[in-house]
Parts: sequence; C-alpha cells; structure tokens
Amino acid sequence: MAMARRIDVHHHFMSQAYIDAMGVERVASPGSAGHAEAFSAEQSLAFMEVAGIGTAILSVSAPGVELATPQATATLARECNEAQARMAADHPGRFGMLAILPLPDIDASLAEIAYAFDTLGADGAVVMSNYGGEYIGSPEFSPVFDELNRRKAVLLVHPSAPLGYRGFPGVSLSTLEFPFDTARAMASVLYYGTPARFPHVKFIWPHAGGAMPTMAGRTAALSQRNAKFELRGPEKMTQALRGFYYDTTQSLSRPTFAALSALAPFEHLLFGSDCPFASEGLVRASLAELEELALTPDRQAQFERGNALALFPRFA
Amino acid sequence: MAMARRIDVHHHFMSQAYIDAMGVERVASPGSAGHAEAFSAEQSLAFMEVAGIGTAILSVSAPGVELATPQATATLARECNEAQARMAADHPGRFGMLAILPLPDIDASLAEIAYAFDTLGADGAVVMSNYGGEYIGSPEFSPVFDELNRRKAVLLVHPSAPLGYRGFPGVSLSTLEFPFDTARAMASVLYYGTPARFPHVKFIWPHAGGAMPTMAGRTAALSQRNAKFELRGPEKMTQALRGFYYDTTQSLSRPTFAALSALAPFEHLLFGSDCPFASEGLVRASLAELEELALTPDRQAQFERGNALALFPRFA
Amino acid sequence: MAMARRIDVHHHFMSQAYIDAMGVERVASPGSAGHAEAFSAEQSLAFMEVAGIGTAILSVSAPGVELATPQATATLARECNEAQARMAADHPGRFGMLAILPLPDIDASLAEIAYAFDTLGADGAVVMSNYGGEYIGSPEFSPVFDELNRRKAVLLVHPSAPLGYRGFPGVSLSTLEFPFDTARAMASVLYYGTPARFPHVKFIWPHAGGAMPTMAGRTAALSQRNAKFELRGPEKMTQALRGFYYDTTQSLSRPTFAALSALAPFEHLLFGSDCPFASEGLVRASLAELEELALTPDRQAQFERGNALALFPRFA
Amino acid sequence: MAMARRIDVHHHFMSQAYIDAMGVERVASPGSAGHAEAFSAEQSLAFMEVAGIGTAILSVSAPGVELATPQATATLARECNEAQARMAADHPGRFGMLAILPLPDIDASLAEIAYAFDTLGADGAVVMSNYGGEYIGSPEFSPVFDELNRRKAVLLVHPSAPLGYRGFPGVSLSTLEFPFDTARAMASVLYYGTPARFPHVKFIWPHAGGAMPTMAGRTAALSQRNAKFELRGPEKMTQALRGFYYDTTQSLSRPTFAALSALAPFEHLLFGSDCPFASEGLVRASLAELEELALTPDRQAQFERGNALALFPRFA
Repeated sequence: MAMARRIDVHHHFMSQAYIDAMGVERVASPGSAGHAEAFSAEQSLAFMEVAGIGTAILSVSAPGVELATPQATATLARECNEAQARMAADHPGRFGMLAILPLPDIDASLAEIAYAFDTLGADGAVVMSNYGGEYIGSPEFSPVFDELNRRKAVLLVHPSAPLGYRGFPGVSLSTLEFPFDTARAMASVLYYGTPARFPHVKFIWPHAGGAMPTMAGRTAALSQRNAKFELRGPEKMTQALRGFYYDTTQSLSRPTFAALSALAPFEHLLFGSDCPFASEGLVRASLAELEELALTPDRQAQFERGNALALFPRFA
Repeated sequence: MAMARRIDVHHHFMSQAYIDAMGVERVASPGSAGHAEAFSAEQSLAFMEVAGIGTAILSVSAPGVELATPQATATLARECNEAQARMAADHPGRFGMLAILPLPDIDASLAEIAYAFDTLGADGAVVMSNYGGEYIGSPEFSPVFDELNRRKAVLLVHPSAPLGYRGFPGVSLSTLEFPFDTARAMASVLYYGTPARFPHVKFIWPHAGGAMPTMAGRTAALSQRNAKFELRGPEKMTQALRGFYYDTTQSLSRPTFAALSALAPFEHLLFGSDCPFASEGLVRASLAELEELALTPDRQAQFERGNALALFPRFA
Repeated sequence: MAMARRIDVHHHFMSQAYIDAMGVERVASPGSAGHAEAFSAEQSLAFMEVAGIGTAILSVSAPGVELATPQATATLARECNEAQARMAADHPGRFGMLAILPLPDIDASLAEIAYAFDTLGADGAVVMSNYGGEYIGSPEFSPVFDELNRRKAVLLVHPSAPLGYRGFPGVSLSTLEFPFDTARAMASVLYYGTPARFPHVKFIWPHAGGAMPTMAGRTAALSQRNAKFELRGPEKMTQALRGFYYDTTQSLSRPTFAALSALAPFEHLLFGSDCPFASEGLVRASLAELEELALTPDRQAQFERGNALALFPRFA
Repeated sequence: MAMARRIDVHHHFMSQAYIDAMGVERVASPGSAGHAEAFSAEQSLAFMEVAGIGTAILSVSAPGVELATPQATATLARECNEAQARMAADHPGRFGMLAILPLPDIDASLAEIAYAFDTLGADGAVVMSNYGGEYIGSPEFSPVFDELNRRKAVLLVHPSAPLGYRGFPGVSLSTLEFPFDTARAMASVLYYGTPARFPHVKFIWPHAGGAMPTMAGRTAALSQRNAKFELRGPEKMTQALRGFYYDTTQSLSRPTFAALSALAPFEHLLFGSDCPFASEGLVRASLAELEELALTPDRQAQFERGNALALFPRFA
C-alpha cells in the first residue's frame, strides 16, 4: 500500500549495549518518563508497519556517545555504527544508517567517517548540537566538515541538552530544550559561516529546525550589530536557511508548518517519526496533523518520500 | 499623520536611578552591546516621532527589579512606578504605564498593585518570565493572579534569563534565550492552568510569544503523557493560546508572523518597539517587514492601534 | 552521671510538617542517603541519653526555610520556631532553641527576631551560609545584624549548598561542600567587616569552621591584593577569627582539632552532635576521637559544657 | 648561601604562546587580578634569587591545556612540554619539569608520557584535579595511572575550577575554590582506591592538600555509609593520606601546618612558591611564616630541600 512507502529520516537506534555504556540515567534524562528501553529491529519494523514507513534511516539520539575519555567515546561510536550496519544488512531496503561521530575527537571522527562510509556503507552522519557547550558551528570542528563536504555527505544535527540548564517542572527537556538547542546550533553555523564554507554538506535539522523558524527574523536583525557574524543580515541568513533540509518529526502542527513553509522550500521538508521515543499514539497524532494540512496527493507523496530520496537515492 | 497613531505596547522605562540600583552589568547583560544607558522622556518622544508611535506603554524590562532582599526590591519597584507615572502625567496621552511588581514577594506585590492601579493609574502590570528559576505559572504566585483577575488587568510577562544557562559565542542572550524563556513561561501557565483559573487576566506575551508558536503542537502532544498538566492536549492548549495577546516586537518576519497568525486571532496581535533597546535602524527594519506582510489598510490600522485600544481604551 | 551534662549546640529540629513544607527531596539532598525522616522530641531525648547530652540547642538545618515567596518562607519559619519552643517548654532544661530567620526577607526576619526572642524565649538565631548565592556577610543583611548586635545574640551560621555546584560521585554534598560553604560564609563576613561592625553578635561556626582553619592563612595573604577587603591581612583576620565560636560537630579528628586549636581560643570551642543526621555510630566515633585527644578532665568539661554555658547561661 | 638551595616543586611555566592558545581570560580567571602575563626563564631566575630557590620544578598551572578538541589539546601539551624542556636544558640544574598530560585523551596522554619521560627527560607529570567535572580518581583515567605506576612517576595534581560554581564577591577563585577542588580530587582517589591500585605513583598534592587535612576525619566518618567507597574508614584513609606528598605553597600559616603535620609524615612535606602567580611579597610572607614555625635547622633543611630530593634525586 502507498502508506508503507514513507521514508523516516529520524528513527533511533537504541540497543541495550548502548544504554549500558551510556548509563540509563543519561539516555533517559531527555524524556519525561525517566527510563529508557532497548528497541530491537523487530520492534522497529512493527512500528514502521503501523506508521506506514517503508524505510527508516537509523541514528543514535541524544546524548550521543560522549563518555569521559575520547577512547571510550570512539569505541562506543564504532560499536553503534557496526550494530546499525548489521541491522541494515539483515533487513535489506528497510533501514539506512547515519554514522554517529565520536566528537569532539577530530581524528577519531575522521577515522569513523572513513570506516562508516567506505566499509559500512553509511548513508550520512549524525552529530549532536553541542559538545560540552561548544556548538557544532565552531571552527574547532572544521576538519570534520571539510571531510563531510568532500564526500557531499548528509549530516543530521541532533539536539542535545544545553550546558547548565536543568529544566523546570511539568515539561521534559526534550519538549522545549531540545528544539531550543537545535536553534542554537543553527545560529552557531550561521555565525561561523559553516554552510558557506562547506556548501556540499547536506544538513538535516530535526523537528522543523526547532525554534529557528520563528527566531530567524529576529536573529537576522540582531546579528547586524555583530561584525563577526559571518552570515548576518536577512539576505545571507535566508539564503543559508533555505539551503538546509528539515525533518518535521513531532512538528506538523499548523503554526509550526506555516513557519517552516515560509522559511524553507517544500523540497527540503522530510518526514520523521522519533521512534522509539515517540509512542504509536504520538505518531498517529502526527499523521492526523499531516492529514489536516490537506496537502495535495502529489505534494504529500513528495513530502513523505520523494524529498528524502534526493538525499538517500539508494532507497528509490 | 496616520503613522503617528501607532500604539507601542513594548516600550521600556530606563532611568539612571534604575540602572544604578540594579547595577549596569545586570541591566546590560541581555543586550549584545554589554552596556546600558539611561533614556529620558524626551528621547522616547523623539524615537516615537521617527517610528510613528502616538502612545507608548512604559514597562521595566529584564531583569526587572529583583535585588538581594524583598525590601530593596519593593523600594525599587515603587520608585520605578512613580517615575513612570510622572512621565505619563507630564506628557498626557503619550505614555501609558505597566506597574512593575516586586515579585516574588506576594504581599509587596499586592500592595504595589493597589497603589499603582488606584493611585498612580497604571494601565496594567509587568512581571518577569521566571524568578530564581520559578516560572510565572507557579501556584506560589496565585494570590497575585487572583488580584489581577479581580481587576481584569492587563499583564505583560517579560522574558528574563534562564537560571544556569550562560549563552554561547556570537549570539546575545536576548536574541534567542529571551524568546525561549517566554515559551517556558507560557508552558508553565499552561501546565498549572493559570489562564483557566484566572480568566480575566489579559496576558500579553512579547515577541510573538517567543518560541511558543512553533513549540505549541509539540508541547500539546508531549503533555499528554503527564496527567498533572492542567491544559494538556491540543484542544485545551489551543483554546488557552488563542485567548492570549501577543506583541510582535522584533517578530514581524514572514515565518514568525505566519506561525503566530496560525496560532492566535488577528485581534490579539499588537505592535511593539523594544525602545530603547531597539535602535532606530532595527525599528525601521521591523516596519519594512510589516510593509512586506502587505496587510490591508484596515487590518494594518487594527494591528497598529485598534487591537491595543481594546486593552488600553483610555488612549482612544 | 557526668557524661549526661554535655551541651549539644548543633542538634536539629526535624518535624514532619517541616519536611512536607520543604519537600523531602530538598531536605534529604545534603545527605548521602537521599531520604529524610521526621524526628520527635522523644527520639532526640533517647539519642541524648546515648550521647551523654544533658541539653540540646535546637536549630533548623539546611536548606533552612526558603520557599518560592517571602510569605511562604515567613510562615514556615514561624511554625518551626513555635514548634521548637513547644519542644523546649515540654521538656524543661533539656532543649534550647535557635530561631530560624526567614531571610532574605529583612522585615520578616526582624519581626521573627522580636517574636522569637521576646515571646518564645529563643536562645539565639540560626541562618544559612548563603541565600541564592548571596553570602551572609553581604551588606544587604545589615539590618538583621544590627538587631542581633543590639540584642547581643548568639548566631549559628549553618552551611547550605553553594549555587550551581552539583557534587561528584561517592561523596555526599554535606561531607565536603557544606564545610566549604561555611568557609565561604566566613570569608564573606571578613570581606565585609561584619564582626567589626557588629561586635556583640556571638557567631558560632559549625564543624570547626568548616575548611576555614586551613584556609585562613591563604585568605589573609591573598586578601592583601584587594583594597575592598575590610578585615584583610593576617592581623585583622586573626583577631576576627579568634572572636568567633566554633562547634566541633563531626570535626574532632586530630588534624582538624590541631588546626582549630591553632586558630581559636579553647574557650570558644563547643560540642555538637548533628543529631538526627548523625547516626549513633557516628556520634560514638566522634566521642572516641574526643577521648583520643586526651584533654585534661578540666578542659574536657569546659569543652563539653562550660564553654557553651557562656553562650547559654540559663542551662547552668 | 644556604638559602639558595631551596627546591621549589610548585613553579609555573607561563609562556605567551600558552596564554595565546588558551585565551587570556581562561588563564587569568583563577587569579584575582583578572589578567595573565607571560613569564620568561630570566624572570623565574630573578624570582628564585629573591626567594632563595636553587631549583624550580616547572609545571603548567590551571586550567591546564584542555581545548575544544583532543587534537588541539595534545598539540598544546606537546608544545608546552618541549618549551619546558628547552628551559631546563638552557639552565642546567636550575629547572626540572613536570609534563602536562593532554587528558582526558588517554592515548594522547600515554604518548605524551612516553615522549616526555623518554625523550625530554621529564621529572614527573602534572594533571588537573578534574576534567569537565570528572575527578582524577575516576577509573576512566586508569590506563594513565597504570603507566605512571609502571614508571614510579611523580604526579602533581593541580587544582582547577569546579564545574558550575562561579564564586562570590571579594574572594578570587584560586583563594578558596582551588584548595576545595584539591580536596575533591583527593576524595575522588580515595573513593576509587587509586593509591592502593597504583602504589608506585608518587602523588604531590598542592597547597598542603587544600582543604583535605581538616576534612579527612569527616570524610572518613561519612564514607562509612557508602560500601562503594574503596578506602573508607579512618584506618584505610589515614594510611593512604600518609603515603602522599604535599607541597605547602601559600600554606605555611600555623593552623594549616598544624593540620598537615597531624596528617602526613614530615618527610612528605615540600616547599613551593606558586611563581609567577605569587608576587615576591607573597613569597616573603610565606618565608616569614616558615620562620615563625621555628623548625630546627635540620628539619628546615629537610623541608626546603631534602624531602624534595627523594622525589627529584637528579638535583642533589
């Protein structure tokens, strides 16, 4: 059936080994429930059946793989990437994979890109919005962007928790703080001019760019005061923002879609589920929101699948 | 001329005495420039001339008036409110005023409401989004909302800095963190059911509700997991959000306006300048954005003045 | 028996009503166990029997009574003080009490001093080392010190958690961070010259002055660079430190006692138990350490009781 | 003259290149003055002349060499170590050097140990008390301790700023927070049993062990509740603490020396200057305190030189 052909660009890998390595507290902390559970390939496939997803692009979610030393981090990244690759190989056509990079270690990240893209056949990479408070646009990370640029790679920048802020009662960190951190990461790449310096990297910003669509005008206006802001002013900023891709995971309500549509070309909007963090109920609600948007059948097909094929053509 | 009749609901009182009491570092920290300068009535009037503003509603900006003890806080609130009232009396029809409340002191805030509304003729009140990390929806503040509700008062909730987060290079706290804190404060009142418990308070949320328009759908969906969330779920949340007023200070770019328009009735959208934090250049840019929205003349007049008169009828 | 005449100047009031008002998480967080339990007068008396304590001076421990608003704080302070006074009245000669002050509210604190000293017969007052990061020496608190000075009052400054620091694995906040915060509070009163400005306040610093005995020389030396440091330099600092009283709660190991003895006159050293946070085992260990110090019987009696009688003569 | 033969085990390397790489703000923040200046070999030698120092053991101070990526960190560590080695080679007998390790990168630290010890002739190593809030006792760092243990290396653990705490008015971070962080690092190695697992590492704890001498009894007592505390209880803790070396930089006041002498054998006490952070005035004050301790000439010589020779025999 038609529904079963959605491509889900925001679908998380969550093995027990990963949870054990990171510690359940850190993995669970973004969610309101305070616990995290392993999710098998079979569970993902069952979820995909319900949600009409033909192919899911796997990625490690927040807080990524950062442990106390770069060595432990690199080891965990490697293990996750190999496990994702096995999952993709075991179920041909059903899973793609984004390689998690062991940042902030540059050498290990370059090595992981080489191994994951050349040996594991990764479909792109995933990084966190900030590392110890250093946002992803920082020039410190340039060698990695240089290599991703050379490979014309897809890069999903997943939100992570900000440094220092602890949240407030009633609202889980992932509800507001994650989309806020996505906006910070986007502001960081605009500040440092990353999209202009590495024009072949295909950025995917999750959750409709987080809070950025409503912040872009304000950021453009206020950036004018700061001569060090590389892509400052409405014109440069608009151009950069229109070049990005956006997944609309948990972000299909009418005001959000309206803001995103005014910011980005329709061809750059992608479907995502947030499985297994999103329950089936949440995904059903998202699909109902999608229906309410009343896109034409052509555009809906493009949004659900066609746009993603431009980034992941092997699933055509 | 017609332009000169705009009502500016977001215009800040900034006396030297206030800067001295708070310390220039704390007052300046929200801005990118790192300094704060006193602004006289004459300077405000000159700015209003340039921006076509007939009447400006004065308010104290972040970080409000909170000092180390409630006594010092209450004294400063009183001084600011009296100075604002003098400014309004000296220039009839040109200035309204929102009374700054000495929260988190409940008794002093109730006393200030009585004095400011009954003696000084305040047009409403202003509070900060959070006090020491306690967001404005917290039941601790209910006696103040009770009194504001009894008076059917206008309440501007101005953003403040979050507790613990320090920002990142290139982007001033006020650019992103302030709109984020507005969204947190809105989530807080939704969580505790404030708009339902105090239905006569007329909330104004600045900067188009900060990041909330793009966060509302996500918050509604994720709130479902939390039985303690008073206004949870899309229906209740939408109803509450449609009941609020929004100023569009620094928030008239097309994506922001699109999101806000999908969230709130047009009658609840208000014009604001952020003077004196906004330079003339910023305000001109905002007015240019307004022009690009290409509202019909009727709607533009309603937005610039008519909608505000519903809240501040004495300036008709 | 002789043992039963110890005076315990560091013995905590811990009612269920207090725990409920503060929230068990905040009350328990200083301890490693993560939970807090109410402790009745009868439980205190049984503990005193075991520890040879004739009289215990009650006080509220960290985190004091600070709630979100000054009104809630003042109400809780009043309830705690009245409950302590009842406990003292019900068991004549067995309990003294230090009134907890509802800081940072100055007026409420002055009112509480008047009520607690004049009506409840308080033996002194207790405050926290910092309030929202503002240390107790801050001039903001001067009106309270002025009144305590006028009354020649005993003042216990109890350590509290520092603002922002979260601890590290294996060591509870109370083990190291509390004594560190006592040292910060002492540095704060030295910096602002509090002991010189209010010479009749009889300060008791808990836990042998926390880390201050080993920090005093260093603080004296480094303070020289700072012309705003009121009691800077070894001479002034030594004089001020020798004027303070110190309880030796959980602080009778040989190195600690050696440092304290080199800093303060023997007449200013006091016995304290930290009941009910200290288990019977911990108190037995403390008493064994006391024995190892091999004080002469006269000095031991002076330390255990005589020195305290200079501050609390009604228990003679 | 006899005085000129002191061995200074706490003497900092501070080149302009180092300041430039770290950023002057980060290097200066520990000090009260808020600025940092480069210090040449000639300036060190002049200082040593004044302070009667024959040999100074160079080390990088807080905040060490940690930059945003492990690669940048390793490069800076290498440059500092080579510059220190040149300084030692250029002035035979006058300078020793401790190799700064590029932690938390384990592989780079192992490589740096090999190069610095085998090629540069390092006299030991220096690390910070915590890395991103992870204290030095953490098992994550075990491979480095393993290698230092194999080499029977001297290891200076220099205090660094704690994660999250920002200080308070009037007192520089280095005055209190640094000695507190040394105590935290010592508690961390006691918790994880580091001294028992790596018995040949010769730890030097600066500033008389920071706050630890007065905290040891309390830590021993409170550790009893925690079965995971490796060296818990007075006996094991005392044994471990007696095995450490302590420099007495800025820590020769009578109470501090009394506490340290009750904790550690005299043979483990070392002289240190904190040059160039310490001014000549501060060092003179320290030497005056040393005189007031009225050690016998033999013991003074042992303290100033003999004890250090046990760790650095090549300067005999």
